[in-house]
Amino acid sequence: MTKKLTPRGKDYSKWYNEIVLKADLAENSAVRGCMVIKPYGYAIWEKMQEELDKMFKATGHKNAYFPLFVPKSLFEAEEKNAEGFAKECAVVTHYRLKSDEKQKGKLIVDPDAKLEEELVVRPTSEALIWNTYKTWIQSYRDLPILINQWSNVVRWEMRTRLFLRTAEFLWQEGHTAHATKEEALKEAKLMNQVYADFVEKFMAIPVFQGTKSESERFAGAVETYCIEALMQDGKALQAGTSHFLGQNFAKAFDVKFATDTGKLNYVWATSWGVSTRLIGALIMTHSDDNGLVLPPNLAPDQVVIVPIYKGDIQHNEISRVAEQIKSDLEGKNIRVKFDNRDKFKPGFKFNEYKLKGVPLRIVIGPKDLENKTIEVSRRDDFSKNVIDQNKTVEYVENQLDDMQEALFEKAKKFREQNITQVDNFVDFKKVIKEKGGFVLAHWDGSVSTEEAIKKETKATIRCIPFDTQKNEGKCVYSGKTSERRVLFAKAY
Amino acid sequence: MTKKLTPRGKDYSKWYNEIVLKADLAENSAVRGCMVIKPYGYAIWEKMQEELDKMFKATGHKNAYFPLFVPKSLFEAEEKNAEGFAKECAVVTHYRLKSDEKQKGKLIVDPDAKLEEELVVRPTSEALIWNTYKTWIQSYRDLPILINQWSNVVRWEMRTRLFLRTAEFLWQEGHTAHATKEEALKEAKLMNQVYADFVEKFMAIPVFQGTKSESERFAGAVETYCIEALMQDGKALQAGTSHFLGQNFAKAFDVKFATDTGKLNYVWATSWGVSTRLIGALIMTHSDDNGLVLPPNLAPDQVVIVPIYKGDIQHNEISRVAEQIKSDLEGKNIRVKFDNRDKFKPGFKFNEYKLKGVPLRIVIGPKDLENKTIEVSRRDDFSKNVIDQNKTVEYVENQLDDMQEALFEKAKKFREQNITQVDNFVDFKKVIKEKGGFVLAHWDGSVSTEEAIKKETKATIRCIPFDTQKNEGKCVYSGKTSERRVLFAKAY
Repeated sequence: MTKKLTPRGKDYSKWYNEIVLKADLAENSAVRGCMVIKPYGYAIWEKMQEELDKMFKATGHKNAYFPLFVPKSLFEAEEKNAEGFAKECAVVTHYRLKSDEKQKGKLIVDPDAKLEEELVVRPTSEALIWNTYKTWIQSYRDLPILINQWSNVVRWEMRTRLFLRTAEFLWQEGHTAHATKEEALKEAKLMNQVYADFVEKFMAIPVFQGTKSESERFAGAVETYCIEALMQDGKALQAGTSHFLGQNFAKAFDVKFATDTGKLNYVWATSWGVSTRLIGALIMTHSDDNGLVLPPNLAPDQVVIVPIYKGDIQHNEISRVAEQIKSDLEGKNIRVKFDNRDKFKPGFKFNEYKLKGVPLRIVIGPKDLENKTIEVSRRDDFSKNVIDQNKTVEYVENQLDDMQEALFEKAKKFREQNITQVDNFVDFKKVIKEKGGFVLAHWDGSVSTEEAIKKETKATIRCIPFDTQKNEGKCVYSGKTSERRVLFAKAY
Repeated sequence: MTKKLTPRGKDYSKWYNEIVLKADLAENSAVRGCMVIKPYGYAIWEKMQEELDKMFKATGHKNAYFPLFVPKSLFEAEEKNAEGFAKECAVVTHYRLKSDEKQKGKLIVDPDAKLEEELVVRPTSEALIWNTYKTWIQSYRDLPILINQWSNVVRWEMRTRLFLRTAEFLWQEGHTAHATKEEALKEAKLMNQVYADFVEKFMAIPVFQGTKSESERFAGAVETYCIEALMQDGKALQAGTSHFLGQNFAKAFDVKFATDTGKLNYVWATSWGVSTRLIGALIMTHSDDNGLVLPPNLAPDQVVIVPIYKGDIQHNEISRVAEQIKSDLEGKNIRVKFDNRDKFKPGFKFNEYKLKGVPLRIVIGPKDLENKTIEVSRRDDFSKNVIDQNKTVEYVENQLDDMQEALFEKAKKFREQNITQVDNFVDFKKVIKEKGGFVLAHWDGSVSTEEAIKKETKATIRCIPFDTQKNEGKCVYSGKTSERRVLFAKAY
């Protein structure tokens, strides 16, 4: 297999698919639209899970697990939610297979094992969870409930792409219940902020936080907050969402609580999630034509050590040094791989780790043995330095921090260069078509205008940013009054 | 809700169900046979996952993720495996719902969205994984593959019980591929040993390791190894299995590799798994009529601090001491909860933590404030001691270690008292019926004898223990020659 990738400039989409496959992150499976997440890709997901899980727990959340299946009658209880997901539901109708009498060794669905009520494979778990919360909540003393679930979900997407859009994906879904509207709103915003912090600090991806327009809102939500990132090809990617669900699910499932004065009120809800889609965002933000570039904070291996030697004696001596360096670095919680495989040449290994985006590469050769040095090179800018062995730990720590920072700054600069403020629809179309990126423009707030703009340009409102100032103007499309600019882009 | 449990002596099964519900571990859901794992139960599972995951990684395994669904044609490829699981498969037949024209707001399965090929919700993943390995393995250089997956699986069980037997459960499944039979056998035994180590060291449950008889073997395996534990009611529980799959799956999916001499051979396989069922074993090994008893190594909270005070001033002073103790203990990686809730009385809290099995309880009252002491009591034997505050860390560390050890020793002693060696079928039946526990007896090795014994006594062969000496005798049932005693018991 050739390790060369199609350059991004030639075909970004092809480059993306190749990088996923060649860096051993994931591949398509025998099941339509479902992917196999390979060990290297899964290791990145594990790092993400670890950090997010800490952040969820630090904000008072606990993990739990709810069933994979949702009985159809529960699924349809919250009408908007049901309507939004009905078209992409995998449905279990039978609970048994039996031998096919016509073909030896083959199985058929047993018609006698038809379920009385069909089960939907969860596309999201609000329905099942709120049906459960109903029995958990009687009084204000039972509130808030702050629960998160790590799980798989299924949405029968017609056009799938590895990590970005798959029929089954892994995610976490938080589901909280509150006594007041204010508390639920605060929670929804807090979790959106947690996502922003995680994506910026660990993934080194700058994001905008904002509110979704009505047509991009989660089915069943009153408000959807989101974080939006910009990919290298100028398309936006929704990296996480946090929903204020109002009392919609409490009403659908009749979940009330007694206040401290004995009044019965409906419970207020939020839900929030991020998924394996984040890995797609990670790839498309930092990687280059040579392969993956991983931010040190999430790289499964932060440092790889490659020995260069001739013969067993040299190999042994260099291995001793490498093992010592590995152990010193691991003492500082740095993740190190010593690639001591004898059947592969250094050049082959260099290519492999370049492709796989390992942040730092340490090479130790015969000269280094003599001089008590090592050569350290960085994956992001390919800078290379020979340093004293006894400076390794300090140097590596600094370089990892620097690289984490540099990736974020680079992505932020790119984003700044790719936000355009426009004031009329001609410019709007031109920018979306030729330059891409985010467009900040006035919008009259109507669904019909958003629809019309989408139809003509494929750009959608990514969010109404939290931090823009009120600033009156005229809608680029309709000319009607607008209160503030919103963020448009073509999106993944 | 009354916190009192039905005593074990009165109705063990009822006691078990009550403890699961009242200790807030899990509950039944709206989906037949599927449970909701509540935060406290899930926290135990997280501790188990954390420790097992470390052990898997330390033995060279990596995590990955394969699809939830298995296309029927792949599922049926390994005939014995398919036959074994066909009767309990949830089957997805459609991928869309639509509005019911006859009933507003209701949904029906869209008949136009019937899948060409039905998808089985994985009851286990050998089929899908070996179909994937086929493309990963060309040469001996690609071997071994050492992969584990944490996931949910579905087996449509007719009689379900929380944790012990549920339609959906959480588990890990290891799937490895090897160049030689010897290596695969070694792997299967190694992972069985890892399970034994985990269950004994962390769960404080002594286990027997052995080989399953033919009729208890995993569908599709050549040999199944297992760990078997004894519950308090004298029934055995299979706590984990590790399978040597021979070349069965390699042949079913045509997975061959080129040896270093260029010969094409079928690959050798293993698979191994433990599940949330372990939580059932944990409950039924250590808990008592007062509630759950958790081994310190797996307890989500190892220590709970309960303050006793009158008025705000005392409350504040005691809280200061409690917070300091909490922080000192946490500095030693001890998991501590300070229950500072003002709306619940100490007696209520004592009952709650007894029910929830928190290993150590620290009480700090006004006297303790004066004397700079605390009162520490242990959940297993209810021993209570007043100690100096400045001895807390050392004392707690020792007590946690002692308790972990004591639970294991107690369970081991119970098991020793409940293994009976018998030499004729009259005694066999009597012991199984009246005393219960494990019975060590000679067996002629035939499926028909095992079948007959099961029919008459409900006891099955739990395993042919690894460590028994060859020791000729006569089968208790048939009188035929037998080479060694095997372990019988009624089982969960």
